[in-house]
Amino acid sequence: MEQLLFFLEQNRERFLAELGDLLSIPSISTKTEHAPDIDRCAEWVSTHMRTIGLQNVQIFKTPGHPVVYGDWLGSPGKPTVLLYGHYDVQPPEPLDLWTSPPFVATIRNGNLYARGSADDKGQVFIHLKSIEAYLKNQGSLPINLKVLIEGEEEIGSRHLGQFVREHKELLKADLALISDSSMFARGIPSICYGLRGLAYMQIDVSGPNKDLHSGSFGGSVHNPIQALSEIIAKLHDKNGRVVIPGFYKDVRPVTKSERDAFRKLPWSDGKYAKDLGVKQLYGEKGFTTLERVWARPTLECNGIWGGFTGQGAKTVLPARASAKISMRLVPNQKSKTIATLFERHIKRIAPKTVDVTVLAVHGGEAAITSIDSPGVRAAVVALEKGFGKKPVYQREGGSIPIVVQFKQLLGLDTVLLGFGLPDENAHAPDEFISLDNFFGGMRTSIHFYHELPNFLNDRRSGR
Amino acid sequence: MEQLLFFLEQNRERFLAELGDLLSIPSISTKTEHAPDIDRCAEWVSTHMRTIGLQNVQIFKTPGHPVVYGDWLGSPGKPTVLLYGHYDVQPPEPLDLWTSPPFVATIRNGNLYARGSADDKGQVFIHLKSIEAYLKNQGSLPINLKVLIEGEEEIGSRHLGQFVREHKELLKADLALISDSSMFARGIPSICYGLRGLAYMQIDVSGPNKDLHSGSFGGSVHNPIQALSEIIAKLHDKNGRVVIPGFYKDVRPVTKSERDAFRKLPWSDGKYAKDLGVKQLYGEKGFTTLERVWARPTLECNGIWGGFTGQGAKTVLPARASAKISMRLVPNQKSKTIATLFERHIKRIAPKTVDVTVLAVHGGEAAITSIDSPGVRAAVVALEKGFGKKPVYQREGGSIPIVVQFKQLLGLDTVLLGFGLPDENAHAPDEFISLDNFFGGMRTSIHFYHELPNFLNDRRSGR
Repeated sequence: MEQLLFFLEQNRERFLAELGDLLSIPSISTKTEHAPDIDRCAEWVSTHMRTIGLQNVQIFKTPGHPVVYGDWLGSPGKPTVLLYGHYDVQPPEPLDLWTSPPFVATIRNGNLYARGSADDKGQVFIHLKSIEAYLKNQGSLPINLKVLIEGEEEIGSRHLGQFVREHKELLKADLALISDSSMFARGIPSICYGLRGLAYMQIDVSGPNKDLHSGSFGGSVHNPIQALSEIIAKLHDKNGRVVIPGFYKDVRPVTKSERDAFRKLPWSDGKYAKDLGVKQLYGEKGFTTLERVWARPTLECNGIWGGFTGQGAKTVLPARASAKISMRLVPNQKSKTIATLFERHIKRIAPKTVDVTVLAVHGGEAAITSIDSPGVRAAVVALEKGFGKKPVYQREGGSIPIVVQFKQLLGLDTVLLGFGLPDENAHAPDEFISLDNFFGGMRTSIHFYHELPNFLNDRRSGR
Repeated sequence: MEQLLFFLEQNRERFLAELGDLLSIPSISTKTEHAPDIDRCAEWVSTHMRTIGLQNVQIFKTPGHPVVYGDWLGSPGKPTVLLYGHYDVQPPEPLDLWTSPPFVATIRNGNLYARGSADDKGQVFIHLKSIEAYLKNQGSLPINLKVLIEGEEEIGSRHLGQFVREHKELLKADLALISDSSMFARGIPSICYGLRGLAYMQIDVSGPNKDLHSGSFGGSVHNPIQALSEIIAKLHDKNGRVVIPGFYKDVRPVTKSERDAFRKLPWSDGKYAKDLGVKQLYGEKGFTTLERVWARPTLECNGIWGGFTGQGAKTVLPARASAKISMRLVPNQKSKTIATLFERHIKRIAPKTVDVTVLAVHGGEAAITSIDSPGVRAAVVALEKGFGKKPVYQREGGSIPIVVQFKQLLGLDTVLLGFGLPDENAHAPDEFISLDNFFGGMRTSIHFYHELPNFLNDRRSGR
């Protein structure tokens, strides 16, 4: 163990340079023009897996972006971990809000800035370096490891479910491990046991069959921007609740013990509001901020557009207006059900003066893992050793749809070992990973692989 | 007169080619990158004025885009007309909705398509050709003529007021003449006696100080797109009335005789809705469509933007959202007063959870000309001779701010001789001018200059 931790210390600069190389590839999965970058990134990851000593490395084609796989299965009788991550990233826009270029890894104030540094290339890389430490120094890992890195997480892991279904034997394991989330706060190692689901929708409103002069026609037809705004304004009531019939029907209530645990976490609404630069918070009445973000479903507008958006003034009455709207879901809401309820509600409240279409862009289910499971217990020990501090338990407002699929298709519980930070700017300009978490994450990963057999042994012998 | 009309017939092809040349210049005034095109267009117009025989032609610099001036003052004792037009155009976007390229004049089905064909290069060109007909065939005009073509009409004629104030002597005249509006319908020559004013605003809503991950933060702060939509949704009541305190206070009511005249015009709400491709019209209850568009103030959203608007899905909770909103005004509303009322109202209804700023982009006043004025009476005769049919009286929903300034600064009544069509797509893709109106307009212009001394003589002798 000493030897492994020393190896990490000695190779800090090299690790940062290698990560910088990986982060320089704009592997943006949602934009078709970046398909060559996606392929290049999959190549980079597979080559790197081979370099660190993983075996059976291959790139699997899918109808979308490729999946990279590699394994090390030299510990018979020990548990097998399926490590999952993704090499694709969100678009970097708006570019003018980045302090340094999004695809040039730049260190400032103890953080490394770049698109994908936290979500998720940096966190994948933490595990690759822990694996390298074992294989270069000891020639073996204390467990069996299967590594699965996909390229479509930011677009809803469209083809991963099919891939998993078609490769159940290849992916057979005792536990899934994902590092794609955040710690509760800087300096507070955390174990995440719940994720929200997602239903991502688009509304398109059509009015007149062409853009009109707003002087010559203004006052005679329903303006699509106005109609769309009127629809959006009706989606929340004055208490911040989502006004879609049936939306809350399947929501598992926050338990008293969870509420109590959330309340014990170091938290200040005032500081949170100040950090985000808002005068006052907003959301569903009757719930604390953490409850709203972690354990309650919400509805957010992700984008809106229509008419003239350039410099100056154009007096147009536009033919169309559109919005992207997504809902975060909690157990036991079902993504498809919510998408249907949303579409039905929008159609019901849409004014008769315009044409409204609703498109379900993608979705994923919420997930909860028991905090008494062997994987979570091993993670708690590893985090304490990696960061020198007992971790807290938390949930996360974001979505990792694959967690649900691992359970459904492979019967696996997932351990979420997050090394990001709440202010890491994932999906936004100036995304970063803290260097403390980057190297603390490697130490934790090393300890986790070492500890896991102590907790999983019993279970595994039954297989 | 015969000779002049024959000259028009003989030169049709040349006129269309020359107009095509003028329309090929993308003189978009609202975009700074098109400043060189604006200058090139002003050069083109001034050169053409010299070619047709106008005198004292010059380009006047302004703090914005240049003004082109030329005159012919060889009819002492006869009335002097100040002909006004503009050589700047609206942006052509969205480009993909144009059937032929916006800056390539293309004839289809008896119409000439191009940005500026109707608004206003084509209509300016009609008068230049009428002037050419007189000066090439008779060596003189029956009146004195001053021609003023500006380059900032589409951005609110920002510097024209100052130019007029500084050149009162140069611009001294008996009557202003503008062709920058539409006929009531194809085949119905019309005289326009009223224009709406404009107050063009922008609302910017700021929420968090950066774009946030909509999973990790969704449900904790007020989404700026949602807040902006909630503001916009509150600007009209269920009867389609604008809900800004004091908005209607200064509105001059539509008179009974005007309502009766409007009702006599050939009009079908059903056909209008069908032409525009809407299932049902929308607007202020208690008024007909023509009353709403011509004689009632209205509020339209011209553009909206915020968050992710690209292909696919980005789960962002955006930092900002913005909208461009303009109000069309009628006598006796004042643009500045309405802009102030708008800003005050928006500030009042803005949620406390976001920061809202309101910007007055530009404005202009409404205008009405008496239908008994000498200029209008001469125009009625000229239109009947030019098109072989008695014209109807109409108002227009758009704005020509300079009409108000000509009255205030030069004491001039304005005759609005519009040769466009209601479906001409001004400010939209596939803008066109009908060839019938293009050549009918030239005949009308020739008759107007010929008829005017019969109506204005009395008045002028008193000067």
